[in-house]
Amino acid sequence: MTVRDFSQDHAWLSINTATVRRQQGLEVPLDRIVDQCAERGIRAISPWRDQVAAVGIGRIARQLKAHGMQLSGYCRGGFYPATDAAGWQRALDDNRRAIDEAKTLDAPCLVLVVGSLPGAVEGQAAYTSLARARSEVHDGIAASLAYARSVGMPLAIEPLHPMQAAERSCINTLEQALDVCDALDPDQIGGLGVAVDTYHVWWDPKLQAQIGRAGQRRLLACHVSDWLTPTRDLLNDRGMVGDGVIEFKRIRAWMEAAGFAGFSEVEIFSQTWWQRAGGEVLDTCIARHRQVV
Amino acid sequence: MTVRDFSQDHAWLSINTATVRRQQGLEVPLDRIVDQCAERGIRAISPWRDQVAAVGIGRIARQLKAHGMQLSGYCRGGFYPATDAAGWQRALDDNRRAIDEAKTLDAPCLVLVVGSLPGAVEGQAAYTSLARARSEVHDGIAASLAYARSVGMPLAIEPLHPMQAAERSCINTLEQALDVCDALDPDQIGGLGVAVDTYHVWWDPKLQAQIGRAGQRRLLACHVSDWLTPTRDLLNDRGMVGDGVIEFKRIRAWMEAAGFAGFSEVEIFSQTWWQRAGGEVLDTCIARHRQVV
Repeated sequence: MTVRDFSQDHAWLSINTATVRRQQGLEVPLDRIVDQCAERGIRAISPWRDQVAAVGIGRIARQLKAHGMQLSGYCRGGFYPATDAAGWQRALDDNRRAIDEAKTLDAPCLVLVVGSLPGAVEGQAAYTSLARARSEVHDGIAASLAYARSVGMPLAIEPLHPMQAAERSCINTLEQALDVCDALDPDQIGGLGVAVDTYHVWWDPKLQAQIGRAGQRRLLACHVSDWLTPTRDLLNDRGMVGDGVIEFKRIRAWMEAAGFAGFSEVEIFSQTWWQRAGGEVLDTCIARHRQVV
Repeated sequence: MTVRDFSQDHAWLSINTATVRRQQGLEVPLDRIVDQCAERGIRAISPWRDQVAAVGIGRIARQLKAHGMQLSGYCRGGFYPATDAAGWQRALDDNRRAIDEAKTLDAPCLVLVVGSLPGAVEGQAAYTSLARARSEVHDGIAASLAYARSVGMPLAIEPLHPMQAAERSCINTLEQALDVCDALDPDQIGGLGVAVDTYHVWWDPKLQAQIGRAGQRRLLACHVSDWLTPTRDLLNDRGMVGDGVIEFKRIRAWMEAAGFAGFSEVEIFSQTWWQRAGGEVLDTCIARHRQVV
């Protein structure tokens, strides 16, 4: 089993469009980002729903087609836990719309950031039971999965770093995400898997074993960004690949040994990189993809 | 199995002296902190080596004896990984001294923060292999354990939150810490266990199961502080118990069901609480211990 050679080109590079959503401190529309990627021969992107909505999904779909570009994923569904029945229904409806949008854009999967304690993102958790949040997330994914299967859109659960456990995701390890997959898709019919983001999982002593457990059918996406020392912010201080301590080649070797053969998607939330010119950021992503991923 | 009632007194409260090491922004010597705790009927503390050294270990030992105070642990040993043989030997020697000091102070255990990538705390990791750091940590604990057993000082491995995986500890879950215990002490002879710090492990979906696995012989210490939303700093933004989202009573019930019957040690690294008066901080610890722990 040999690992794919990324050093000669960037055929397997994808840009998560959050990476360049702000350029030199200013918000940049998605159609401009798509052009910037196309100009550099980048074959795939992973856009966010709000970016798509701001330009119009029909226009983005046509633009991608014209450039011959594909998606490596669509960001994002999830955020299931709610405090009442109305909130719960809103979450399910919203995920249904996200699935429809992913389908329109011909995404290979909808990435799920599942949510956690309701209200915690705003600073005041409505309840503190992680067990309850996890139960609601289980039920929410089950509901979305039924619809997603009916339209043929795979769902990729993204375990988030434990430092996001209160606010953004109560699924915090790959093992836990795969346990949910096994519970909801025991026969591996398909349509349910995981997005492995190096930033969220690099620390996990069970990472290699769980990537192997996931296997080709469950490994739906691979995101990269680096862990900086020091890390100054829990959300927006991710590093450019190569600037931190994550061993990308090692993790990619585990992914490919398990059968993954998709894009390596650069997703960097960083106040630092959002201050730079978009072209410079994309050129750096290409160079680092060849060198260190 | 009933859980101990903490609501009527603070007999099982311990103060980790880092919590009040700075008061109103100023460094306070350990002997003063011991007096402040004794005045409030606090029966136990867990001091740090630098605080002890600054006053003198003999003096602290006599002061504790005069007050009838005990330790709930001694902070700390660990930081094993090194870049060369000399550094490795320094780490082993330093841990030996920490064990001797813990013995002098009659501590129930020496807490181990095991270290990770050498140099990462200073911002530049000398290497990035977590596997290597974990191997060195395994060997380091083995070496310390041989000496610790010879003098009768239990070692408590403290898994640190994954956000500390690069700089301070490559042991990041209770399961991983217990795997090390099982590898180095397969027959549970004793003298090796874990310190469960709620701040580091609260998010773990396997927490209840692993506390049960640990059992009475491996559960050597219990630390409490709270997870704030938002958390603004990875190191020094811990919350006073009751100000965040951690379910202390639930976790304590799991600990006691597994046989733990020791102190609940408040350990808060917080720029906010270090600005307040020491008496106010300690009084708040006592009140919250009764209310929410």
